Amino acid sequence: MSEPLVIIERRNDGVAVLTLNRPSARTAVNVDMATAIVDAVEAAQDARCIVITGADPAFCAGLDLRNLGTDKLVDLPRFIDAVAHSEVPTIAAVNGAAVGAGMSLALASDIIIAGESAYFLPSFARLGLVPDAGITFHLARRIGGGRSLSSLMLAEKIDAKTALNWGLAYAVVPDAEVVARAQAVARRLATGPCAVLGQIRSLHASTFDNSLQEQLRAERSAQEMTLETHDCVEGVRAFFEKREPNFSEH
Amino acid sequence: MSEPLVIIERRNDGVAVLTLNRPSARTAVNVDMATAIVDAVEAAQDARCIVITGADPAFCAGLDLRNLGTDKLVDLPRFIDAVAHSEVPTIAAVNGAAVGAGMSLALASDIIIAGESAYFLPSFARLGLVPDAGITFHLARRIGGGRSLSSLMLAEKIDAKTALNWGLAYAVVPDAEVVARAQAVARRLATGPCAVLGQIRSLHASTFDNSLQEQLRAERSAQEMTLETHDCVEGVRAFFEKREPNFSEH
Amino acid sequence: MSEPLVIIERRNDGVAVLTLNRPSARTAVNVDMATAIVDAVEAAQDARCIVITGADPAFCAGLDLRNLGTDKLVDLPRFIDAVAHSEVPTIAAVNGAAVGAGMSLALASDIIIAGESAYFLPSFARLGLVPDAGITFHLARRIGGGRSLSSLMLAEKIDAKTALNWGLAYAVVPDAEVVARAQAVARRLATGPCAVLGQIRSLHASTFDNSLQEQLRAERSAQEMTLETHDCVEGVRAFFEKREPNFSEH
Repeated sequence: MSEPLVIIERRNDGVAVLTLNRPSARTAVNVDMATAIVDAVEAAQDARCIVITGADPAFCAGLDLRNLGTDKLVDLPRFIDAVAHSEVPTIAAVNGAAVGAGMSLALASDIIIAGESAYFLPSFARLGLVPDAGITFHLARRIGGGRSLSSLMLAEKIDAKTALNWGLAYAVVPDAEVVARAQAVARRLATGPCAVLGQIRSLHASTFDNSLQEQLRAERSAQEMTLETHDCVEGVRAFFEKREPNFSEH
Repeated sequence: MSEPLVIIERRNDGVAVLTLNRPSARTAVNVDMATAIVDAVEAAQDARCIVITGADPAFCAGLDLRNLGTDKLVDLPRFIDAVAHSEVPTIAAVNGAAVGAGMSLALASDIIIAGESAYFLPSFARLGLVPDAGITFHLARRIGGGRSLSSLMLAEKIDAKTALNWGLAYAVVPDAEVVARAQAVARRLATGPCAVLGQIRSLHASTFDNSLQEQLRAERSAQEMTLETHDCVEGVRAFFEKREPNFSEH
Repeated sequence: MSEPLVIIERRNDGVAVLTLNRPSARTAVNVDMATAIVDAVEAAQDARCIVITGADPAFCAGLDLRNLGTDKLVDLPRFIDAVAHSEVPTIAAVNGAAVGAGMSLALASDIIIAGESAYFLPSFARLGLVPDAGITFHLARRIGGGRSLSSLMLAEKIDAKTALNWGLAYAVVPDAEVVARAQAVARRLATGPCAVLGQIRSLHASTFDNSLQEQLRAERSAQEMTLETHDCVEGVRAFFEKREPNFSEH
């Protein structure tokens, strides 16, 4: 029996680590890999935080181009939706190249942690392809419209340091520490208030579509649902007792 | 008689300085303080620029959590609207910690000037609360979607230097000079063309909601209202006469 | 016969260089100049990339204020539309001051390359004017809402280094090399896949208006149109043959 395309490691701190495991193809995404990623993200919805990384040497080389022109096209919207709309927060541990739709995958995650020698390459135009898998949505929101447009038009590599400087990556660490650092951040989220983290991600996803009035209303309605929860009562109590809160809801 | 919750100082350069004055509670916002801020901003609408600061040591520690769960909840939309939709430009002189809704308050201002040891802490998630008071609207627009999302999810402190680097703060100055620097910038706005500054703020508030066509139309319609004004005639004349303009409209 | 207001140089690498040629007025835009720019951009639609620069010393000093108050007002929406909706990618080679609507013109371009001593000055408020020509749309998307708002309200000069740091400029080079560098980048775009570059620009123009679902759909529909093209077939083939692609569509 062959190795699974995505290895799921469930840690006892509530973090699930998904390793895209097709190193011979630099984790290129074909139909089977896309399905495996969607399935793995869905299977990990019982975790409190998901880390996505690639089996070295690459994070994800993007769409497997041998698929192009055949009937079996990867359903990119479904692929990206699984990550972007995961109920559980996601962290991309970018251990190497994040190319094309592999870069889109990292951007669909909530937080990106990159190794020093990792890079992001929106290669689409170089191949005569339209940037997809949500990259035209997520990249502009992360790094601004100017840098996003020139990076996509020129299909230019963004190294880890630049990614940090531009706000694309949350942190850059030595290559050997990428997954460990991602797990450490994931652990912090895993001990956080689940419902609130979900509300933050949801409020965030639509923030550029709303007027201030609409966003204030959305915040208030989210807050009203939260005030009654055990996590909120516990969070405020811990604050007054000057101790760390013990969030427990799922 | 007790000290007022907000001290209003009207300066003869047209600048009104509002000092949130509850230092024993680090200017935490309860219902009375929220009302006092709204009232003060409304009372200062006859000024040409408003500076908002806190009585040391904090700028504003956010919502007073002793209010939670009681019937008397702070009306955060009204609180933020008063600042965001003030007819008069507002500058936040962040003299110390800007925490939770206190950070939201700073972000609702047009320009943020921070002391070197000041910081911004979107503490909500740490307390099991949804970020509110417009922070999910304003923060993403100022610093981009990636940094905004990770800051809110991890409830991470943003120091003054980082705030400057990320475009959250307009300037960082020695702690002792925060209010003076804010007043200096306020004075420049106070000598500016009021109607135009209002149009800039209004065009800005909706810029991410509009297509280029819509925004071009909104700019033109604002410009048409402006071309007839004394300030515009004076501004152009001063330009040709190579002197500073003397804007006088209110 | 007088010098043309816009000099069009068609290079044999597919790049058209438009030089705004009214150096005595620092390329101020009056009705004739605006018409000449629109006409030149339209005439250059048979090129594969357009570079816009100014005859030294300025890139463009903005609207010619001697026009104000007369019947002959520049049609700014049409002026900016010609650049923003050009079918051909545009690069602004900012060789000197880009002031007022001249800054708006640079921002309407896809990529901005600036000389070391060039600067961007959104001078509008200083003159009692509303910022226009799309600057309230493009500036916030490039540099974020905070920096955009303060720059416009205070009419503050942004030097080349700051423009690079803020993501306003793509590159800053020695003054003498601005046009050469812009041509080099233009050449890269000119050898790129035209239809895809057009799709990127179009997807980008509406990215802040769309939800992730809508943008994913727009990407897919653009991709479907692209997959059948010669450029796409050639791009993917070149990738597998490890050679540079030879894009040829127009």
